[in-house]
Amino acid sequence: MNSNMQQYLEKAQVLIEALPYIQRFNRKIIVVKYGGSAMIDEDLKRRVIEDVTLLKLVGFKPIIVHGGGKEISKWVGKVGMEPKFINGLRVTDEDTMEVAEMVLGRVNKSLVQLVESLGVRAIGISGKDGALLKVEKKYSDGQDIGFVGDVKDVNAQILYDLLEKDFLPIVCPVGLDDDYNTYNINADDAACAIARAVKAEKLAFLTDIEGVYRDPSDPGTLISELKVSEAKELMVGGYIGGGMLPKLQNCIDAIEAGVSRVHILDGRIPHCLLLEIFTNKGIGTAILNSEESRYYHGEQ
Amino acid sequence: MNSNMQQYLEKAQVLIEALPYIQRFNRKIIVVKYGGSAMIDEDLKRRVIEDVTLLKLVGFKPIIVHGGGKEISKWVGKVGMEPKFINGLRVTDEDTMEVAEMVLGRVNKSLVQLVESLGVRAIGISGKDGALLKVEKKYSDGQDIGFVGDVKDVNAQILYDLLEKDFLPIVCPVGLDDDYNTYNINADDAACAIARAVKAEKLAFLTDIEGVYRDPSDPGTLISELKVSEAKELMVGGYIGGGMLPKLQNCIDAIEAGVSRVHILDGRIPHCLLLEIFTNKGIGTAILNSEESRYYHGEQ
Amino acid sequence: MNSNMQQYLEKAQVLIEALPYIQRFNRKIIVVKYGGSAMIDEDLKRRVIEDVTLLKLVGFKPIIVHGGGKEISKWVGKVGMEPKFINGLRVTDEDTMEVAEMVLGRVNKSLVQLVESLGVRAIGISGKDGALLKVEKKYSDGQDIGFVGDVKDVNAQILYDLLEKDFLPIVCPVGLDDDYNTYNINADDAACAIARAVKAEKLAFLTDIEGVYRDPSDPGTLISELKVSEAKELMVGGYIGGGMLPKLQNCIDAIEAGVSRVHILDGRIPHCLLLEIFTNKGIGTAILNSEESRYYHGEQ
Amino acid sequence: MNSNMQQYLEKAQVLIEALPYIQRFNRKIIVVKYGGSAMIDEDLKRRVIEDVTLLKLVGFKPIIVHGGGKEISKWVGKVGMEPKFINGLRVTDEDTMEVAEMVLGRVNKSLVQLVESLGVRAIGISGKDGALLKVEKKYSDGQDIGFVGDVKDVNAQILYDLLEKDFLPIVCPVGLDDDYNTYNINADDAACAIARAVKAEKLAFLTDIEGVYRDPSDPGTLISELKVSEAKELMVGGYIGGGMLPKLQNCIDAIEAGVSRVHILDGRIPHCLLLEIFTNKGIGTAILNSEESRYYHGEQ
Amino acid sequence: MNSNMQQYLEKAQVLIEALPYIQRFNRKIIVVKYGGSAMIDEDLKRRVIEDVTLLKLVGFKPIIVHGGGKEISKWVGKVGMEPKFINGLRVTDEDTMEVAEMVLGRVNKSLVQLVESLGVRAIGISGKDGALLKVEKKYSDGQDIGFVGDVKDVNAQILYDLLEKDFLPIVCPVGLDDDYNTYNINADDAACAIARAVKAEKLAFLTDIEGVYRDPSDPGTLISELKVSEAKELMVGGYIGGGMLPKLQNCIDAIEAGVSRVHILDGRIPHCLLLEIFTNKGIGTAILNSEESRYYHGEQ
Amino acid sequence: MNSNMQQYLEKAQVLIEALPYIQRFNRKIIVVKYGGSAMIDEDLKRRVIEDVTLLKLVGFKPIIVHGGGKEISKWVGKVGMEPKFINGLRVTDEDTMEVAEMVLGRVNKSLVQLVESLGVRAIGISGKDGALLKVEKKYSDGQDIGFVGDVKDVNAQILYDLLEKDFLPIVCPVGLDDDYNTYNINADDAACAIARAVKAEKLAFLTDIEGVYRDPSDPGTLISELKVSEAKELMVGGYIGGGMLPKLQNCIDAIEAGVSRVHILDGRIPHCLLLEIFTNKGIGTAILNSEESRYYHGEQ
Repeated sequence: MNSNMQQYLEKAQVLIEALPYIQRFNRKIIVVKYGGSAMIDEDLKRRVIEDVTLLKLVGFKPIIVHGGGKEISKWVGKVGMEPKFINGLRVTDEDTMEVAEMVLGRVNKSLVQLVESLGVRAIGISGKDGALLKVEKKYSDGQDIGFVGDVKDVNAQILYDLLEKDFLPIVCPVGLDDDYNTYNINADDAACAIARAVKAEKLAFLTDIEGVYRDPSDPGTLISELKVSEAKELMVGGYIGGGMLPKLQNCIDAIEAGVSRVHILDGRIPHCLLLEIFTNKGIGTAILNSEESRYYHGEQ
Repeated sequence: MNSNMQQYLEKAQVLIEALPYIQRFNRKIIVVKYGGSAMIDEDLKRRVIEDVTLLKLVGFKPIIVHGGGKEISKWVGKVGMEPKFINGLRVTDEDTMEVAEMVLGRVNKSLVQLVESLGVRAIGISGKDGALLKVEKKYSDGQDIGFVGDVKDVNAQILYDLLEKDFLPIVCPVGLDDDYNTYNINADDAACAIARAVKAEKLAFLTDIEGVYRDPSDPGTLISELKVSEAKELMVGGYIGGGMLPKLQNCIDAIEAGVSRVHILDGRIPHCLLLEIFTNKGIGTAILNSEESRYYHGEQ
Repeated sequence: MNSNMQQYLEKAQVLIEALPYIQRFNRKIIVVKYGGSAMIDEDLKRRVIEDVTLLKLVGFKPIIVHGGGKEISKWVGKVGMEPKFINGLRVTDEDTMEVAEMVLGRVNKSLVQLVESLGVRAIGISGKDGALLKVEKKYSDGQDIGFVGDVKDVNAQILYDLLEKDFLPIVCPVGLDDDYNTYNINADDAACAIARAVKAEKLAFLTDIEGVYRDPSDPGTLISELKVSEAKELMVGGYIGGGMLPKLQNCIDAIEAGVSRVHILDGRIPHCLLLEIFTNKGIGTAILNSEESRYYHGEQ
Repeated sequence: MNSNMQQYLEKAQVLIEALPYIQRFNRKIIVVKYGGSAMIDEDLKRRVIEDVTLLKLVGFKPIIVHGGGKEISKWVGKVGMEPKFINGLRVTDEDTMEVAEMVLGRVNKSLVQLVESLGVRAIGISGKDGALLKVEKKYSDGQDIGFVGDVKDVNAQILYDLLEKDFLPIVCPVGLDDDYNTYNINADDAACAIARAVKAEKLAFLTDIEGVYRDPSDPGTLISELKVSEAKELMVGGYIGGGMLPKLQNCIDAIEAGVSRVHILDGRIPHCLLLEIFTNKGIGTAILNSEESRYYHGEQ
Repeated sequence: MNSNMQQYLEKAQVLIEALPYIQRFNRKIIVVKYGGSAMIDEDLKRRVIEDVTLLKLVGFKPIIVHGGGKEISKWVGKVGMEPKFINGLRVTDEDTMEVAEMVLGRVNKSLVQLVESLGVRAIGISGKDGALLKVEKKYSDGQDIGFVGDVKDVNAQILYDLLEKDFLPIVCPVGLDDDYNTYNINADDAACAIARAVKAEKLAFLTDIEGVYRDPSDPGTLISELKVSEAKELMVGGYIGGGMLPKLQNCIDAIEAGVSRVHILDGRIPHCLLLEIFTNKGIGTAILNSEESRYYHGEQ
Repeated sequence: MNSNMQQYLEKAQVLIEALPYIQRFNRKIIVVKYGGSAMIDEDLKRRVIEDVTLLKLVGFKPIIVHGGGKEISKWVGKVGMEPKFINGLRVTDEDTMEVAEMVLGRVNKSLVQLVESLGVRAIGISGKDGALLKVEKKYSDGQDIGFVGDVKDVNAQILYDLLEKDFLPIVCPVGLDDDYNTYNINADDAACAIARAVKAEKLAFLTDIEGVYRDPSDPGTLISELKVSEAKELMVGGYIGGGMLPKLQNCIDAIEAGVSRVHILDGRIPHCLLLEIFTNKGIGTAILNSEESRYYHGEQ
């Protein structure tokens, strides 16, 4: 067998190895929180979208939830608005909300565009469409930070209907309160709320870190598998740094609401999503039920 | 019978009068091109949305196509961009397109928001979602005016699928070329292309004029009913003014593609849509097939 | 704005006011017991049918249950039959039943005819079709009064199937016993049994009185809203007159079986049904659950 | 094997012989025009209904169309109406139509009752339900004979919808003109129009004669099989007597409109319908396409 | 009436008598364990298949489960294999299993062929198709008897799907263990497991005996009706002979799992299945719930 | 990036490269003729089944048609039958047919078993099931060669129904003539007839040669792409050797009946099916329409 043929066979082998994974997730919903560097670098962006499109094509039901990344700040600056802060948090006043919604909307449709260019049916919605995301106003230590909301209700039927019509839904985290005012929602929170509402099989966060560390200052302490009980202990023990805290809480909430597995992936690794799902590489940190093991079928 | 009761009976009478109209348009698609003053005045805006929502609730299948009105210009200015013109036409370069898409997206979701607040399921899409609107680059007398496109293909199935899932689709006129680049589309053209593709029963343009005049300088020459053959004569005869010319061409194209009736309505009249559909008032100008009469069942 | 236009706008306003009601009852079943003067006066008859047809067209699922009014007596006389009475009640012997069924059948099809003339799909059935109404023989104080039956079973699936095929079912109160003999049924009882079986949202009795009075001799004591608990007290207290007693019992039974609201309407008021459903007029007496208030959304 | 067992085996044999016939007509529509003696004799009546019910149960889709037989005349007399005649034809004035509709309605529901007692879902409709039968006024040699109509349109969808919901439709021949007035229709004509509209596989007339005779005065000339071309010759040749003439024309029309086979059966023979369909007995006269032979699979 | 006609009427009568039975089992699943002499005698074979085909055509949902009869032994001999026995039971080693599967497969398709020749859609499957029958290895008094399995799981959905597509499923008793090895299953056991899994209305065993005897040595003690409680007593009391013991246990298990009635029929009687189902003959032994009586509707 | 990661990325790349192919064949039917060495070597067998299972899982609709390979000869010998030959062709007498059907049936179920073990729903049928394959007797130069048939009719609905229920159909080439006798069919012919009947997108033959050669004696003349017109020329020109001749004719017939592409693949290459479909390797010979090019999207 010549070397060319050898190479082809290796390709075939990769496809065959994907078989049990394709089977396991067939017709299962997978929510992908898309953000961080993977949204800025055009190359990474394309690869994430390729990954999700592939998931769709091989029979999964992915839903993308994305933030606006640094685009919002850029445009807030561009139009000459003065940012206000309370407790170090940006205040989303009406004007800021207007810009944020515009930017998120455009990011949303640009992702639709990418997916469509790969030949898959996508639809870009916000929490306003079909009143998907109903929120209540959020306060920061009792202080008014403007139009920032906590998801209090997800109209899962909207997503089921779009999935049934074979759309890949791409959601931007804008919601409505009971008086139908516009609110910004943290994208992690939105992804978590959606994953819980649609009883997703998997929820994956694309982030800019490698995963959860037992000691954030020591890269050697990356945790590959974290049971919910352990995660709680880490949080209580103060081992978890600032930005990771709410994300980890989201992971725990999702698992406790019935999502089978949550992943914190390093979005800077090309095709991290495919690697996580179709290989036994074990990228990033997997948060799972206390009774389970990370690896299926005696992998690894 | 006291006067209170008299008043109630008159109300009942109005509802009963709507009966044959409700019946005639049951499950029929009605495309509404929404623009002009009716998009700017908050009160008119609410009334237009109430009208369309009512159409939905009594069994019609409305689709809204909207432009961005003066909002685009406002934001182009706000971010300090220099407008460029060719042949008196604004050139849509990449930056302008970016702003236009952001603005159109936000207008789109604000209409969704209004419809949802009235308790009806809406979904806001652009021509990118499901690749609804495929375009080809448009030139103005051979000159490049940037990312402005002519609709060359409408994926009607997308709209059928959303209607089947009981959504009121709200469409903003942004499309994709064969290389999946973003293009701006004239909203009138988009509405017309969509009405033709979904074989709408009715296409209504909300405008800032009373209708078509035989003599644009004489308000007394408003035309109530215009057969396609007459419309062509008027155009050839040079009686039709600048802005009206392409709109009238759109009307003719729609009728010839099978849309039953096209209306040019004065969006400045509150509830002009309901009045046109549910009464025999005869607002604005109706363009119809050369063999038909404007009035159903011997009305008027 | 000229007065003509003013008038049109008022019309539009009425339609818009109907919007929340149309929404609330969308796809809900409404059973209308049709009887009394509204069946005799041709003008009232047409209006009742217009009302029900409108309910159908705007998305409700009405079912009409009707009696034979004075037509049965007229025909019993016409064919020269001797009426027999026990305890003051007419005895329905075989011959009387035969005439009654003939008359009810014709009334039934004449209502179908009216609805069809308004362009809506109707179907006229009796309790024999699909064995919709199974009865057991009824006795009056132990005395045999012939072929008069109490409903003991409603085959709701028959009505669901006809509603699914978009028919407006019109039912005349004739039933079958276990040996498939023909029985007459009181129309109020039939309407109530049907409303309970199909879990109707609303059951409305068109009668020849204004409603329930606290003191039947004093028109000023008309009760607008009657909770089930109050109704029971009134009955126990002996405040309710003869004909109203079984009707009120029907209302209570319906509410307790899950019908949301029962109305006793004055069928002599033109369009009383529309007024009750689409305005906040509050015609007649509404019987409702002890925990609810008559008015939705803070009406009145 | 004892004689008892022998008898049982013969029973089994009969069932087995029915197998190919059950197969051939599976899910096919069979229209039965029910009239004559078979409607009057209670024993024959029960057997006809048993036959049709069996057809339904083994997978066919029968539709019964019936007349009122002698019942109409009886009731017209009972209420003391004076019959009027033109050209020897009874004039159906408004009063006569009223009585006719009452009588037909009751006959209709009594057939429903019988079918239901055999455990099969029946529904009794007239041409008014769903506007099944639209007519135009018929004249007799230019003379007005009142409310007698010719079928000009059959709304086949109504019957398809009822069949889909597993009803056995029983139709009485009353129709509506364009102004929604009530008309009487000849039952043979109605059956024929319906069979053509629903593209029935078979149309069977239950009559009071043995079939078509080559010489009506000689019982030995009964025709077993009549091709359309032969039927036309017989009619032209003047061999066909009065009452048979329009019936034969109906048969020809049905065949030419696509009904596979029309049968003129002697309704006085118990179970004539079953015998015709499930055995190779060859009862009455079969009218068929000029290219076919009466017997399937080389029967007889 | 001549004698020929008399004979035809008797035929019609048989069909009419079948009516209530056809009705009772409409759309019900009936599992037929087909084996014994009825599989060997070509004439009996054809009659069994005719019976089951008729059941299918008149609206029942039969499923055939069959064994391989003496064919397996014949072929094991033909290929010159040495039979091995443990505790008097044939050991199914790999080679034997191979032959058994080949023979069962061919018998299976020959039954399909017969049903198809009668014009009914059949499909022949084993427990491997759709992993219909999952087994676990069976031991005989702790001894390894090879690839013989007990059914531990039936994938009923497979059968529902095939029935929905209007197939008559014919199943041969071969199954898979958790490692997807091939196992032989006792056909009685397979039929019983399937009847339980699909919640069959009836399970009928075609055997080579007349039924269950109170005293196996006295043909006069054939039991016509056996309640589950009585059956248990008989078994405990030692009245039941060898081969009948597991069969009776299967019957009891089926009844306790919700099968309405189990029949032990004498497959040597032609059309025993039809006689049992369509007449009140009472062939063989019926095992039923302790509260029921064998005869429906006061038969016998 | 370490070498481990590099390797993983290459895996991801392979999956991503499969994307356009997965898309192109989504929900398309692919018929695989499975035979030759790939049926004998256990390792190759497993890989073929893995390939087809993967095709199923990623959304294609594969159908396997297989022969019996050398198994039939082996068993014919085992049971001591004397092979007869005419014109060098084996005569399939009744006994041979019996053995062939047994062997094919077992091979069929063993493939089902393999697919099921990979977690995909399979069903093994022959041309008898649902009368899938109707044949007529085939003669060799006018000589009777026994029960060997040519496919004259394929009941495609059977396959559509099984595909709709998500089965992977595995078909063995046994058919029925009009008298429902059993016939053997050449597996290549059966695969071709099926591909034509279901309008497959692709038909792939797994063979024991590399493909079609321009000069069979010179391996360097392997043809990668063969247009139908060229294939005909080669055949006429006598360049095509014995065994290949009918196969090539099958290919031409399939293309002319609407199959988009036919492939002659070397089944001895592991995963040849995947390589052909998911890479641009271009294994074996592709036969295609005279207007097309082998490579999609400018591949190679």
